[in-house]
Parts: sequence; C-alpha cells; structure tokens
Amino acid sequence: MNLVAENHNDHIESIVRAVLKPVGSPGIYAQTGLFEQVIEGLTVFISRRREPGTEVWKFPPVMSRDQIQNSGYLQSFPHLLGCVSCLDGGESDIRAAVERPDWIGGLEATELVLSPAACYPIYPLVAARGDIPTKGLLFDAASYCFRREATYEIDRLQAFRMREYVYIGMPEPVLNFRTRWISRAAEMATQLGLPHRIAPASDPFFGRAGRIASISQLEQSLKFELLVPLQSETEPTACMSFNYHRDHFGTAWALRTAAGETAHTACVAFGMERLALALFATHGVELKNWPAAVRKSLLL
Amino acid sequence: MNLVAENHNDHIESIVRAVLKPVGSPGIYAQTGLFEQVIEGLTVFISRRREPGTEVWKFPPVMSRDQIQNSGYLQSFPHLLGCVSCLDGGESDIRAAVERPDWIGGLEATELVLSPAACYPIYPLVAARGDIPTKGLLFDAASYCFRREATYEIDRLQAFRMREYVYIGMPEPVLNFRTRWISRAAEMATQLGLPHRIAPASDPFFGRAGRIASISQLEQSLKFELLVPLQSETEPTACMSFNYHRDHFGTAWALRTAAGETAHTACVAFGMERLALALFATHGVELKNWPAAVRKSLLL
Repeated sequence: MNLVAENHNDHIESIVRAVLKPVGSPGIYAQTGLFEQVIEGLTVFISRRREPGTEVWKFPPVMSRDQIQNSGYLQSFPHLLGCVSCLDGGESDIRAAVERPDWIGGLEATELVLSPAACYPIYPLVAARGDIPTKGLLFDAASYCFRREATYEIDRLQAFRMREYVYIGMPEPVLNFRTRWISRAAEMATQLGLPHRIAPASDPFFGRAGRIASISQLEQSLKFELLVPLQSETEPTACMSFNYHRDHFGTAWALRTAAGETAHTACVAFGMERLALALFATHGVELKNWPAAVRKSLLL
Repeated sequence: MNLVAENHNDHIESIVRAVLKPVGSPGIYAQTGLFEQVIEGLTVFISRRREPGTEVWKFPPVMSRDQIQNSGYLQSFPHLLGCVSCLDGGESDIRAAVERPDWIGGLEATELVLSPAACYPIYPLVAARGDIPTKGLLFDAASYCFRREATYEIDRLQAFRMREYVYIGMPEPVLNFRTRWISRAAEMATQLGLPHRIAPASDPFFGRAGRIASISQLEQSLKFELLVPLQSETEPTACMSFNYHRDHFGTAWALRTAAGETAHTACVAFGMERLALALFATHGVELKNWPAAVRKSLLL
C-alpha cells in the first residue's frame, strides 16, 4: 500500500468515526444525528425527482419467505439471505430451550426473511391486481435491507437502507426508463458534488454457476452502477444501480401487459448509507463547510 | 359483539385498507405514501420536543445477540425474540442445502437478532464510555423493531418503528424525566386531537414466572401507557409508554454514576405506526378533512 492510499484510508476512517459507531457486530453501525440529517436530506432530494404518476410504498425490513423464494433469490443469492428464526412451541418448550447454553439450537425458521432489496414485495403486490396497463406502472419503494456479506468494509454494511424507483411494462419503455434514470442519476451526483462514473456491472451471483450468470449479465448490459471513489480510487463504491430484469419478475409473478405479454421490469436503486458516506468523504464532516449548492440541494 | 362495536370495527378496517396493504404475512404491511406522510409528520412533531443536550442515534433493525442476552431480554421475552439465521459454509454446502425442499433446516443462527426495542443498543454504547456524568445523559433513539407476537390485530404488527427518549442517571432525576414526559405526552396527544388516557401497565413477560413479574411491575408503578381507543373503547391501544427500569440496565451493563452508584434508567417510547393509525382512525383518511391545528402540528 502506498502512502497516498494509506492517507486516504486514514481520512475515510476518521470520517466514519465521526458519523457512525460500531455496535458490537461487523457491518452494523449506530448512526449519529449528523449522519441521519444527511440521509433525510438525500431522501427528500430523491423524492423531488419522482416521476408523475408514481405510487409510493414503504416496506418493513422483513418480508414473506415464500415471496423471496418465488422471486428466485434463493437460487441466485443463497449466501446473502437472512431468515427470521424464533423459539416456537408451548411455555415449557420455550422455557426449557432458554435454560440451555446452546439455546440457539432450538430456533425454528419462521415464514419471514429480511428483505434483501426494496423492490421484491412490489411484484406480488402488482400481480394481485391483474394486467399491467399499456402505459406501464411506476413505483417508489423504500426499505431497510439485509445481506450476509462475506466481508464488511466501511462501504459494505449488513443492514442498510435502499430506495428504488421501479417500472413495470413493455420492454421498450422499461429500457427508456432505465436510460433516462442513468442520465438523471449522473446529474444528481454532479449536483451533490460527487466525483462519479457510470460503469457496466454484475450482481454477486452465488458460486460457479453464478459466475457464468454474472458474465451473461455483463454481456447483455443488464446492470450499470454509478461509482464514487470512497474507499479507493481504483475500487470505487457503487452508490446507485440501474437494473434491467428483462422478464425475470414478470415470469416469476405472471405479470402480463394488457397486450397479453409477459411484463418486463427495471429499477434504479439508491444506496442511502453509501451516498451519505460518499458525501461525508467528499465534503468532510462539517456540514457548514460543504458547498452551498450541495447544502441547498439537501436542505442542510 | 354488539352493533356499535361491529360498526366501529368496519370503520377501522376500511381505514386500514386505505393506508396499509397486507403483503403475504400476518402483521406485516406495506405502507402507502399517505401513511408515510403522517409517519414523517409525527417524526418531526416528536423531534421538536427533544430536550436540550439530547444525543441522537438511529439504529438498524438488527443488533448483537450477545447484547440482547446481556440485557436480560431472553429470560423475560424469549417468545418474542426474532433471530437472524443464514446458510453458512462453503459453496458445496450451501448449494446442497438450497437443493433440498427442507432447506430451512440448514439455517444456522448468526450473531444477530432483530431489535425488540429502540433503546437496547444505547446501554452498551454508554457503558463503553465510562462513568455517567452527575447531570445524567439524554438520548433520542429510533429503530425498526420486531416482536413475534402470538396474534396480529390491526394495532399489533410484527415489524414496527419505535422512537424513544432515554435518560440515564441518578434515581430522582430519572423519575422526574419520566414524570415530565407523561405530562408532555398527554399534551402531545391533545395537540394531535387524539382521545386518550394514561394508565398503569405491565410488560408481557413470558410464562408463569412472567405473570408474577408483571404484577410486581404494576405494584411498583414501573410502567405507564398512553392509551388511545383504536380497535375498541374497552381495549384501547398503547401508543406511547413510560418506563422506569430502576437499575436493570445499569446492573446489566455496569453503568455507574460519577458518585459510584449503579445508574438508573427510564425511557418514553412512541409507537409510530400505532400513533399514525390512531390519527387516521380519529380524523379519517382524507388529510384535508383533519383539524387545521392537527395538520399544522404534523406539517401536513
């Protein structure tokens, strides 16, 4: 590691110490009031760019295990999924379990998992409504998310907030939705004073078969990311992503357009903690020293 | 059930249908933009009443299992605790697990649980800092919480947001903190146009021993609740609670005052979804028809 990189890491670590606090588990942080002010500013900043006719949904951090399985998540990302387990049974069963030092062996899986992304509950909600109108459907989804990552760098949390805009409809307007959000997102990063670039990307699909899926995803240009140097210049952090799912969710949930075809879907996702950290890393931890235009954009 | 109660339940159910949407699991709802507007208004309404010198923390929906055990939660509420379980191991282990229809049998408990209340992570954070100053410490804590309840009525969710003000210090100022928040909370409910009363209460401690703990808690006046008729007049819903923990957390975390005594703690907790539902139940689902003073209080 050269001196420049070391200084950069020191800088990031001092930033993190000022706005986040480790609370006894890797990748889990308590967030200061200062950090939350920036998250709230970002929330409004993103809301103001919501397209007309968008339906707003906020989801709790847990969701139906059946729904996540039906979405194909278990096949693609089994290593990342967090499930909710509880002590079940009558009073004597639970009391006996708790008395054992290895009480966690008595846990049983519930019908719930921790949501791995904000948009998953949208598709079954829409499926229950019938056909997708010809002009398509726009959604704004927000949720706390959980992913059991193998490592937890400063920009990779176990629990984090994701905000998404989702479009469901015919392939061409779905691709147009993604294209205009890529260009809008780059403008947003510029307004926030964040150095950035857009790059093709792939999801961390599981295992050997997953590596083939990732290559195919890259070849088909299904995923792009907006990258901001946070931990390092050479490995910048994905703060937004732009995902074309083709007919993946349409097929999983039998989403049909009015013309009787399987609907396509796309989403733009904002990583709230990563965006906030990118702002602190770029502009420092004293809000009063941030560029006036950035503060105005974030109502700070 | 008499006709009045039936009509009341119809009213509540039509309210819920307008602002929440079941998403495939009992006690789990997607929340509409309208519901979120009211939650955001409540958030600001509560923040404006924050006392000077309060330190603000926001916590993710998961926390350390060791911390929750050390807090005594497992002994008191083992039936309510949600733990995070994952598929662990190498690629072939996880792939093999996923291929089995009973793959959930391969889940293993992680070091994380879902937070059952917003204030639990505060005490170990404070313990790591050394003695409590003579004037005590004030905190503002917010978190998504999870409780595995036995039944899920409209006012009893599995996942919900809790906001808390917490005081840590000597017994007398701790009790004063709680007393002034009881009176302030009643004023807040009045400002929001919510019919309410304050009543002694007890926690749903587990099992037979728990019933004795509940009686003792009532006898010692350790818990009060602000109740609003939501589902029924005879069984009103606790929308806020006022809890004196005595030296429970002080002993668990060796919190010491500057005078060398074990610190006492108290908290006031706001159930965000319950307060929002109480507002909709009282004033209807058309914000424009709400009393002007209530709308002003909530910036709506």
